[in-house]
Amino acid sequence: MADDSLVAKKILLIVLDGASDRPVGGKTPLAVAGMSNLNKLANGGINGIMDTVGPGIRPGSDTSHLAILGYDPYKYYTGRGPFEAAGVGIDVKGGDIAFRVNFATVENGAVTDRRAGRISDTDELAKAINEQVKVPGVDIIFKRSTGHRAALVLRGKGLSPAITDTDPKHEGLPIKESHTTADTPEAKRTAEIVNSISEQVIKALDHHPVNESRRKQGQLPGNAILIRGAGEVPHIPPFEEKYGMKGAVIAAAGLIIGIGKMCGLEYLPVGSMEIETSGSSAAAKMQKALEALKTYDFVLVNIKGADEAGHDGDFDKKTKFLRDTDRAFEELLLLKETLIIVTVDHSTPVSLKDHSADPVPVLMHGPGIRIDDVSHYNELEAYKGGLLRIRGMDIMPIALDLVNKTKKFGA
Amino acid sequence: MADDSLVAKKILLIVLDGASDRPVGGKTPLAVAGMSNLNKLANGGINGIMDTVGPGIRPGSDTSHLAILGYDPYKYYTGRGPFEAAGVGIDVKGGDIAFRVNFATVENGAVTDRRAGRISDTDELAKAINEQVKVPGVDIIFKRSTGHRAALVLRGKGLSPAITDTDPKHEGLPIKESHTTADTPEAKRTAEIVNSISEQVIKALDHHPVNESRRKQGQLPGNAILIRGAGEVPHIPPFEEKYGMKGAVIAAAGLIIGIGKMCGLEYLPVGSMEIETSGSSAAAKMQKALEALKTYDFVLVNIKGADEAGHDGDFDKKTKFLRDTDRAFEELLLLKETLIIVTVDHSTPVSLKDHSADPVPVLMHGPGIRIDDVSHYNELEAYKGGLLRIRGMDIMPIALDLVNKTKKFGA
Repeated sequence: MADDSLVAKKILLIVLDGASDRPVGGKTPLAVAGMSNLNKLANGGINGIMDTVGPGIRPGSDTSHLAILGYDPYKYYTGRGPFEAAGVGIDVKGGDIAFRVNFATVENGAVTDRRAGRISDTDELAKAINEQVKVPGVDIIFKRSTGHRAALVLRGKGLSPAITDTDPKHEGLPIKESHTTADTPEAKRTAEIVNSISEQVIKALDHHPVNESRRKQGQLPGNAILIRGAGEVPHIPPFEEKYGMKGAVIAAAGLIIGIGKMCGLEYLPVGSMEIETSGSSAAAKMQKALEALKTYDFVLVNIKGADEAGHDGDFDKKTKFLRDTDRAFEELLLLKETLIIVTVDHSTPVSLKDHSADPVPVLMHGPGIRIDDVSHYNELEAYKGGLLRIRGMDIMPIALDLVNKTKKFGA
Repeated sequence: MADDSLVAKKILLIVLDGASDRPVGGKTPLAVAGMSNLNKLANGGINGIMDTVGPGIRPGSDTSHLAILGYDPYKYYTGRGPFEAAGVGIDVKGGDIAFRVNFATVENGAVTDRRAGRISDTDELAKAINEQVKVPGVDIIFKRSTGHRAALVLRGKGLSPAITDTDPKHEGLPIKESHTTADTPEAKRTAEIVNSISEQVIKALDHHPVNESRRKQGQLPGNAILIRGAGEVPHIPPFEEKYGMKGAVIAAAGLIIGIGKMCGLEYLPVGSMEIETSGSSAAAKMQKALEALKTYDFVLVNIKGADEAGHDGDFDKKTKFLRDTDRAFEELLLLKETLIIVTVDHSTPVSLKDHSADPVPVLMHGPGIRIDDVSHYNELEAYKGGLLRIRGMDIMPIALDLVNKTKKFGA
């Protein structure tokens, strides 16, 4: 029997979305933010760098989170549609065909605005679509997301994701017909369904009161939808079945919530859906996480703001966000029976304003950890730590072993 | 949009062929050569060690260069023949069957010298083979290389590389008949063709004026060929198509030139084909490389001398070559928008006089690099660097990411 006092019982996995960077003038936001609590965790933990998907592979937040949760993205990542659909709260099921959708403006047969004047009052329009658009033998689930965005799910037999988008990509062109990319009856049928939905939506929305009112106010109507990113929702083995741990996800970004749900993590909402841009929402998430650890064996917390600042190319904003976020970590130092993992899903260098493949720092802190010499949590120190260079897919096996839940291979 | 001033635009990949070693008395040629320019690059870059093919896999220069260029050698390495043939300047095509060839001396049906007295005046003999040796339905392309060496390519339908060599390996034995190693009509036909070529060559060369003249001067005639190393030229996706970068190769060794060409790199000759044994030819190559970087996005430079010294088991010669070569790197320190990678294709320990699987040092230097604490480029320091331990196949993905040319996997 293990000595329980020396073995962690719970896992808290914190992902600082996009926090990792390339040096500008020799420095990175993580290195200059002065994150004293995080540095204390690094100092009392084991550190390393991590290729979330693989060396030189530039990950999305979706593929990297799948990998970090131990789900091989090369197997389970089937396009953005399924993950977005789950993220906006559609309870997707393995086999569903899911799409990303934009509300758009169509006039005289041509798309005049691909975002319908950045429409946001889409509740009633979504309702109309769900009520009026029908295809025999197929369930159509439509859900609005933030702004002009939405998600569409087709559920039924004989469907296929092997079809093209209807988004013409440029204004002034008509909505594209969806075509098959594989010569199967399922693809043919699905393309026909998507084209039928495109047409039905215009009929349902063109004279919808919301749009008539928008026209009166000089706003562009959201009278059409552009359908893209077809993907079949993967059959993902549920987290609890896979690991024997009850897990939860705390996040604000739809994509991360969606991935968490699809992996069988329970979504624990904190405040609004908006993506946090200050450290205070990180604090709310951490509070929620500490609470959740009483009930769940595993809690994933995604903190999004640093990624946003990276995409903005704003070094100072990124640094300030990280500094503010650090305050939320003070209580972590008091946790006794929890394996704390702090990592990043991908670098979002301010120099690129986009993700990069540069490896990210990772730390593990808790009972039984082989504490190394690293005392700062950043890209320029982490590589000197005891974990050396690992991969995203290594996180869960290592973590499970540290909470004594791995099975022996051999005797 | 990325901030262009902070992102490298070009890639210069320098391979110090065989430069890596095992310590003798605690020291290696790289460690004692005092390569001050290379050390400056290491000091201002990120370092690591690399298994070009895999831990404990002893690579050839061909397999390691394939891996470093991002072409899986387990998929694309189909034997030495194809790479040698490309290296001597035969414009091989995917599907060709290629062989390495020796000119040899045959007397009374037995091979009396497997290298025909180390013959080198083989231009006219090669011409005679190309003119007189015929097989219906198959193009026969024969090209001399250095010394007694040559390459043979069969081009046509219904051929196979599944056949044995004709080289008897020991003098005093007759030329071997080629046999099939797979029971297919293609292999049977190819073995018959090779045996026919063996016979036809003796008829074409035995009384050739060059050989009559050699006999008169007491030299052995090059009146036969030994055919070995059958391989099917792989269908390799061209570099530019694969990476979206226009690439060039600068090298003296036929094998490396051949690999470069087969991967779609443009071969830029520098002086003669002879393998350099002094640092001055390295300087000429580096000059050529700096020039080429104005036109090409990617330049591979192979510097061969250290490998030769390793095969000779000559520690001092290897050290001196490296020291001389270092002078050629001075101008690299001034490059601004270029990602410089300096690595080694395999260790060639003077203690072994052959390749070994010991990992090799690798450094990357340029904009956006996470500079580490390593300040010397050698086997005993590199492992302390921020790259830690990578593989040959990781080089191109990491490099592409640093020049912002990778595609995101996911969203």
